[in-house]
Formats: sequence, structure tokens, C-alpha cells
Amino acid sequence: MLQSKLFTKTRKEAPRDEVSKNAALLIRAGYVHKEMAGVYSYLPLGIIVLKKIEEIVRKEMDAIGGRELVLTALQRKDVWEKVGRWDDNTVDVWFKTNLKDGMELGLGFTHDEQLVNLLTEYVHSYKDLPLYLYQIHTKFRNELRAKSGLMRGREFLMKDLYSFNATEKEQDEFYEKIKIAYMNIFRECGIGDITYFTYASGGTFSKYSHEFQTISDAGEDTIYVDEAKKIAVNDEVLNDEVLVGAGLDRKDLVVKKSIEVGNIFKQGTKYTDPFGLQYQDESGQKKSVYMGGYGIGVTRLMGTIVETLSDSVGIVWPESIAPFKFHLVEILGGGDAHKVKESAAELYKALGGDDIVLYDDRDLRAGEKFSDSDLIGIPWRIVVSGKTLEGGMYEVKNRRTGEVKMLLLQDLLAI
Amino acid sequence: MLQSKLFTKTRKEAPRDEVSKNAALLIRAGYVHKEMAGVYSYLPLGIIVLKKIEEIVRKEMDAIGGRELVLTALQRKDVWEKVGRWDDNTVDVWFKTNLKDGMELGLGFTHDEQLVNLLTEYVHSYKDLPLYLYQIHTKFRNELRAKSGLMRGREFLMKDLYSFNATEKEQDEFYEKIKIAYMNIFRECGIGDITYFTYASGGTFSKYSHEFQTISDAGEDTIYVDEAKKIAVNDEVLNDEVLVGAGLDRKDLVVKKSIEVGNIFKQGTKYTDPFGLQYQDESGQKKSVYMGGYGIGVTRLMGTIVETLSDSVGIVWPESIAPFKFHLVEILGGGDAHKVKESAAELYKALGGDDIVLYDDRDLRAGEKFSDSDLIGIPWRIVVSGKTLEGGMYEVKNRRTGEVKMLLLQDLLAI
Repeated sequence: MLQSKLFTKTRKEAPRDEVSKNAALLIRAGYVHKEMAGVYSYLPLGIIVLKKIEEIVRKEMDAIGGRELVLTALQRKDVWEKVGRWDDNTVDVWFKTNLKDGMELGLGFTHDEQLVNLLTEYVHSYKDLPLYLYQIHTKFRNELRAKSGLMRGREFLMKDLYSFNATEKEQDEFYEKIKIAYMNIFRECGIGDITYFTYASGGTFSKYSHEFQTISDAGEDTIYVDEAKKIAVNDEVLNDEVLVGAGLDRKDLVVKKSIEVGNIFKQGTKYTDPFGLQYQDESGQKKSVYMGGYGIGVTRLMGTIVETLSDSVGIVWPESIAPFKFHLVEILGGGDAHKVKESAAELYKALGGDDIVLYDDRDLRAGEKFSDSDLIGIPWRIVVSGKTLEGGMYEVKNRRTGEVKMLLLQDLLAI
Repeated sequence: MLQSKLFTKTRKEAPRDEVSKNAALLIRAGYVHKEMAGVYSYLPLGIIVLKKIEEIVRKEMDAIGGRELVLTALQRKDVWEKVGRWDDNTVDVWFKTNLKDGMELGLGFTHDEQLVNLLTEYVHSYKDLPLYLYQIHTKFRNELRAKSGLMRGREFLMKDLYSFNATEKEQDEFYEKIKIAYMNIFRECGIGDITYFTYASGGTFSKYSHEFQTISDAGEDTIYVDEAKKIAVNDEVLNDEVLVGAGLDRKDLVVKKSIEVGNIFKQGTKYTDPFGLQYQDESGQKKSVYMGGYGIGVTRLMGTIVETLSDSVGIVWPESIAPFKFHLVEILGGGDAHKVKESAAELYKALGGDDIVLYDDRDLRAGEKFSDSDLIGIPWRIVVSGKTLEGGMYEVKNRRTGEVKMLLLQDLLAI
């Protein structure tokens, strides 16, 4: 993409009310626009990153049998009264609104009840199970404070998968699969090394739930980490029983601040029974359906990646989700401007063009272009200038390591 | 995809309160689920169709210079007060809600104001223009009545593009381009023949706006059509001045009911001036930015296609947006069941598998499978049975024409 055609420009400063590092960097670099606290629009650069993260998540969910659907934001009161979660005193993050005739509606902060209600029309027999259904869609949560940028939004993108199994054993098997799928996702997104499978409270069926926590000083959680075993315990359940269950020893643990990037819950029949979501087994007997819920905040994941991988001058995207692989920067001063432009345009094509390269064709000084490039955080910066033309080589900088090399075209194409 | 793994099942009847043909068929065939009037969830089959329509729309928008972004549903009151559209007496389709601190918010029914407000941070010079920005995202409209299925939703998917030009001439040129892009979209979606470029009221800058109207008895609009010239006039502006401008003669016109599937508006400076969205021209003078708005209801388009192309037994998808190209139906009765299954599984692979073929592997009678197939509406139905195995050929039915042929594998692959 030509950088002159991106309407966004980098900014020296984030809005004054933006206190989180992730949102400040994403705003300054032109990925997102802040509408109000916890509410961000996604600009063209941001959309590209978001779609790449979505594709990683989708691939892993499909691989374990997930089927995609899209549920609605507007929620019926009667559906949420079934398990007692309509009341604002029980759920304190509802946004509520009204139809013209006065009927109250909610905006989905999660979708357990709606999906279970929907499935009562489709699930009747053991033949209809198991089911693994997921969506990647907007959630609304009326957070009292929303100061963590993309990490705690009032309107945000979430992947939520729900499992429906005939037996506990079958659910347990799926639970093991999704653990692996989640770690695959975090690894593919570049934060596998600093993300821990974590024991946590909140299981409504099993005693505990599990979270995936990414080490970060900006995190709202506190976890105790066994770095060798790659397992952590949330401080809310740090007790001897959990430690024995997890095979951990208190003396091996170090305390860290962390961001919850994913959670997985066995929900048992808490939601399915009140809706009468049951199946007939092979002998014709009615049985309860076991349910599980598995979330990843997709925009929170994007925020976490920025929060943890950026450096003092800007964002450092892993190549898997970077908006472009190459940032091609032409420097016209000090050379034959026409030749430099010609060479840059040729290189743009050779490297793969629009989807692969952000081409800084703007009429700006080298210093400005370089600091923009550091801020935007594309993995490989390539400089084309009078100097590089003379030597017949390109100057290539690795954004993460800072290493600079002079490369021939053939070596550049092999990166 | 294996049909046994689709959790949806076809239904003999739509919900009793569903009076629209498009939603009734889509519900019965398992594409959508009705949550309440005008609010539909999209099930796995529906998601596939929706994504295909989205891709057609996206391709055409990108081809004329569109850049994708995603604006938020939650809307700030102060932004909408600028042009006087916050008031429920002015805009009667708002859903309103509140933050915890009591601050009023709206749910976006369109995004003109929000986008113009956003752009004030990025557009300052003639060098920043033109801009063509679009999103494919959810809109909320608090419709008093929502009885037309996917054609008038309270929560629905829309493509809205906004143009920002330095001069009226430049805008006019873009306006001609998007007219063509819109007709491309409707043609690619299979309704080009019955969709008319239509003169309508509602221009806030130019005297008239333009709509794209698809002929249908279920439509809420009335248009006068010149079938030879492929131009129509909405009855709200049927007067001599418009007819002369459009080069039409009253005697060539026939009256039709129709569905508005798209609209394009020149908005002039109605939104840009109140926000101070101006640019400096080459001589340093401040000038107004010309804006235009261009909408296609993506879910409405899906509903319109079903409404207009279906027949008495079900949906008839055009191949471009059908969830699958082939519906492979195995019939086990009357043949060697093992051999039939083996042959069907081989054919499934040969035809391209998961994304190309819906494979009815369910243990049901032939009649049930055939009527499900007609209802679901995949372009080519292929029957594999004891009989077809004997002859070494496959029975292939064209869903649209009803024509049945016996084909060899090589001819089947060439379809």
C-alpha cells in the first residue's frame, strides 16, 4: 500500500485522557481512533492486523471442529431471566435499551443464554452432539472504568466458543484440545513465551476454571508462575489444594502482574438445564447436555501484543500479524530523485506489492520517515536512496533487533 | 461440509410470527435464526453466504479506491448534536442507552457524523484528499415495525462508503464510478437483470439522490420503469422535470413494486461544514470538503436475493454466493450401501471437498433428502445411489432450471 494513500498520519502525542500504553501507541501510529473511554474505531492499518489475528483464531477453532455463526447484539429480557442474569445487580456490565413499544432489550455482554435458547430448536438426540460453535463478534460491556485501552473495552471484538457434549468424558477430551489450540494461537501471535496456562477461580461446574495469562506490568491480575513448568496460579486460588492438583511447589513460584488473554470454563448444566436443552440417548432416555465456554478477546489480544512487545520508540509486530511484512522507505535527498523513485517502485513490485509492502512514498525528511517507521512497527524496514542505489544493495533493518544489513535483491526476497 | 455436522436442520414451518418469504425460507433452510422481529442470528450456512456477498462488495469498493475501517456502534451525543440529528423527533430510529455515570449514548444507525468528526484529525490539506472510506458492519435501527424479514432489520449488516472530495467535479467523477461498481455488485449477486438505477428524492445537496431498486412484489417502494433503457423513477419524484433529466418518456414506463437494495447520495457540505472539516488548497485558502454517502444493506441484499430468486420449493442461490457449488446426496436404499458411501466419499474429494460440496451423509429417506436439497438451494444436486453406480454415471440436477442429466465424472468436474 502507498503510505500517501493511508489517510492516517502518525501523531507525536496520544489524546491527553489516554493513559494506557497500548492504546496510546496504536492511536499515535494510526491503527485506531478513540471515540470515548473503552470505545475505539479501527482504521485501515488496524483492520489489517485485526483480520490477521482473526484468521489465526479462526483456523485454530475450525481445526478442533468449531463451526462459525454470528449471534445478535440485541438481547431479549425473557431469555436472560431464565438463569437470573438479567438483573443489573447480578450482572453489572449490561447496556440496556428499549424498543419503540417500550420493551426492554440488552446488548450482549456474552452469549451463553442466547445460544442455549437457540439450540433448543436443533438439539434433541445424541446424534445432534457434540457441537462446537463459535463467533468472532462484538461484545458490549458497561464498564465503570475503562482505562486499559484495548485491554478492557466497552465495545470490543471477542471470539467466544461454546461446547455442547453428551458426556463429561467427551467434554474433558475437548477441553484438552482447546487448551492446545489456545496456546497455538498465542504462540502464533508472538506472545507464546510470556503466556501461561493458569489455574483460576470461577468454574461453575468444575472447581476451577483456567485462564491464559500474559506477563505484563500493565496487567490487572497477579499470578504465581512456575517458569520451568510453564504453569501459573492466579493469586485468587493460591492454596495448597490447587498447588497439589497442578503439581506445583510454592518455592518454585515467582509473582508477576499479568493480562488475561483467554479463559476456558466448564459450565456443566448450569445454562442447559434451565432451558431444557436435553438429548435422548440411544436407549431413549432424556439426559442433560454438558456445556463449556471458551473466550479470547480479539481486540484485547491485539492490545496485549502491543503492550508487551513494543519498545521505547514504537510498536514491534510479530511478522504473523504485522499489517505488512516490509516497510519500504524511499529517501530522495542526496540522490537522483527520479532514479530512486523508479528503483523503489520496482522493488515494491518485486517484493509483492499492495498486501506485503507499505511504501513510504511521501515527500518528507528521512528522520521523520524513520521515526514513523519505528512507531508503526513493520518487521523489515528497507531504505532505497541515492546511496543504496550506488552500491546496488538495499539497507534492511530488523525492527525487533535493530540490526541493519546491506542486502542484494535476491537475499532480500529470501527473507 | 458433511451435512450431518451442520447442526441446523430444515423445518417444515417457519415461526408463526414470520410473515416475510425471505426470512421464512432462510429460517426453514437453516441459514438464520429469528431472535425477535427484525433481529436475526446467522447460522453456519448463513455465514458462508454472507461472507461471499461481503467479498463481492469489498472487491468492488477496493477497486474504486475504497479503504476499509470499522467504526463503533456506541455513539456520543455531542457528535450527533452538531448537525441536529441526536433528537428522537428528528431521527426516529435511534436506540439509546447510558453509561454507568448516566451519560447518554446512541447505537449507530448510520455513521456520517462520527466519521466526519474523526476525519477532522486527519484532513487538513488538499494533499489529504480524495478519501473513500467504507465499512461492512452492524447498524442498529429502532424500527417501529419490522415485518420484512432481512429486508428491514433492527440490527443488520451494512456496507457504507463515504467520499470526501476537494471539488464538486472530482466528486461527480467518483459518483459515476460507484454507479458502475453498484451495478457490478448486483449483477455478480444474480439480480442484475431485475435491478434498476432509479431517480429518487432525498438528495441533501443535489436535487435528487439515486437508488438501486430490485423488482419484487414484496417491495415497499413503487417505481416507474423504462425496461429498454434500464432506468426507473421512484414514484415520489415522478414529475416532468425528472423525466426530462433522465431522458425518459412517461408512455414507456411501467409501474412496479420494488426493494431498495442500494442508495447513493451527494451530501455536499451539510456534514463537513458544521464539524469544520476543511482543507487548505494549493494557494493556502481554506475550502469546504464535498461529501457523499453510499449504502448497501448487505443482509438486506441477501434477503432480496432469496425473495426474488426462490421458487415454490425453496431457495435458488446464484452460484457466486451459494454456500456450496454442489449438493452431493447419497441414497443408500436399493444398492450396496457400503459401495455407495465409498463412491460418494470419493466424489466429495474429487469435487473439492469441504468448501465446495455439501455432502448429505445423513441416514434419511431419499424424498426427505431431495426436498431438503430443494429448500437449501445449492446450484447443482448430484445423486450417488446403487443405480447411478451401475451405470457409472452421476445424476446431476440444476436447481434453477430443474434439468436433470446423467454425467460422467469428467463432465461433472467441468461444470
